[in-house]
Amino acid sequence: MTDSNSNNLRLIFPQWQGGNNESYFFGSQLLAWLAPAEKGLTAEVNVLPPAGIPLENEEGIIGRSQVVSQLHNARSLIRENRPDTLVTLGGDCLVSLAPFSYLVETYGEKLGVLWVDSHPDVMTPDQFAHSHAHVLGALMGNGDEDLTRDITHPLAPEKVMIAGIHDPLDYEAGFIAEHGIATCGPDEVRQGAGAVLDWIQRENITCLAIHLDLDVLDPAMFRSVLFARPGRGQHDFGDAAEGRLSISEVIELINIASASAAPVGLTVAEHLPWDVINLKNMLALLPLLK
Amino acid sequence: MTDSNSNNLRLIFPQWQGGNNESYFFGSQLLAWLAPAEKGLTAEVNVLPPAGIPLENEEGIIGRSQVVSQLHNARSLIRENRPDTLVTLGGDCLVSLAPFSYLVETYGEKLGVLWVDSHPDVMTPDQFAHSHAHVLGALMGNGDEDLTRDITHPLAPEKVMIAGIHDPLDYEAGFIAEHGIATCGPDEVRQGAGAVLDWIQRENITCLAIHLDLDVLDPAMFRSVLFARPGRGQHDFGDAAEGRLSISEVIELINIASASAAPVGLTVAEHLPWDVINLKNMLALLPLLK
Repeated sequence: MTDSNSNNLRLIFPQWQGGNNESYFFGSQLLAWLAPAEKGLTAEVNVLPPAGIPLENEEGIIGRSQVVSQLHNARSLIRENRPDTLVTLGGDCLVSLAPFSYLVETYGEKLGVLWVDSHPDVMTPDQFAHSHAHVLGALMGNGDEDLTRDITHPLAPEKVMIAGIHDPLDYEAGFIAEHGIATCGPDEVRQGAGAVLDWIQRENITCLAIHLDLDVLDPAMFRSVLFARPGRGQHDFGDAAEGRLSISEVIELINIASASAAPVGLTVAEHLPWDVINLKNMLALLPLLK
Repeated sequence: MTDSNSNNLRLIFPQWQGGNNESYFFGSQLLAWLAPAEKGLTAEVNVLPPAGIPLENEEGIIGRSQVVSQLHNARSLIRENRPDTLVTLGGDCLVSLAPFSYLVETYGEKLGVLWVDSHPDVMTPDQFAHSHAHVLGALMGNGDEDLTRDITHPLAPEKVMIAGIHDPLDYEAGFIAEHGIATCGPDEVRQGAGAVLDWIQRENITCLAIHLDLDVLDPAMFRSVLFARPGRGQHDFGDAAEGRLSISEVIELINIASASAAPVGLTVAEHLPWDVINLKNMLALLPLLK
């Protein structure tokens, strides 16, 4: 059993290529600036900063070569440090692949993955070229070989709980049903997350890796997510489910779960602070500042 | 004539007491972090950080003693450095009082004040106890003695242009009419700000102090302002005018004006990054981070 005083590694991971959106890069920098000071180690994954050049679709994955290179760099940093616990500040959702696969290797069957997200992230290049939507599937050994090649211990589907999910696409719903993955919708989360506690008990989970995709939050109440882009049209994001939870509901969920199983991994991902970015760009155009 | 390469002082001024809202303090820290690096001098005004204790109404001004002490500290920092140009990063709108009164003293009749704001900020304790709404009036020598005592060179009303203003309260409309202050509404700004250029020419203005209250921006498009508080009710802010301009419209306005008269002062004020604050507070409650 570990706790928050043990050997922690904080990984700053400003990956933006997995979501094909340059703004995740700044989102990561701001997230790192906002987080409480780290008492253990901090390392930053090498990520090519945005340069305003569109990424290419490389055999079904946009920016594949950069994504894969970053994945390897993240793995190296983790292996060099061999932490007991890992905090990852993204970046897009794919940032969880290296740290969570390390945690599965380290903790084995004791580990449960609590995926707090509106979406299950189980697609493959056949469905979507943005690899941030492939990450949970890849952790289970499913999907593109570049993402699964180093997964020596695939995450067992029964060790996964997706909380906050609603209205999955047909492919996603099929994958979840076929693999028997536990889920818990926004209303259930609000009502005390009993399904999460049942899952922890049923699966004998004593360690938790928690992935928090900020897009699980209601974009009308927390505007630093994809779906809160200023001036967006109602249908700009197609059929993708949009977040329905409040910050306090998510904190409550995570705290309830963490009281039943020791947290050993935490990822915060998909931070898109539109207003901060727009303000930063504005300041750079004002007299006496520019 | 000065330019942006001359002796500039950047004043970090995290005043929150003038708006009676603790969040301006963090708003100032974030604004300072976002601004391009300063090539000249930087100084920070001593501001008592928020401590969760409500401020008192001291004879008509909430937090009077702190506000006055900060005003004196700002004046001292400016006088020690005697800059040619001044950038002030607020904090609430009252932060412009010390720097702009210094610029009036320095540049005299050559100086025009371009007040980019939904509101005229000409109230006194008789109308409102929040001194951030008193600042432009105080610069003209009007209002509470604690704010006007050191104004040796009151700003002449004809040297003021309020841009972006709309629907002033009765008292404000009366003050503007009585003093013959030029104004330019959001639609006029959008149509090229001809009134601003006419004012610069008519008043022989060759130097500009520009006060940018971020609440001039449409809160539906830029959510880091008072009026964009998450979950606000429609009438939560009473009769106060809400911003109607976009960031690009404001940049265009300021650039047009700055091409006709040299900018010697710039204030950016009223930054309330609700989502960033809420995220920061959330991070501090998550396992492995807290």
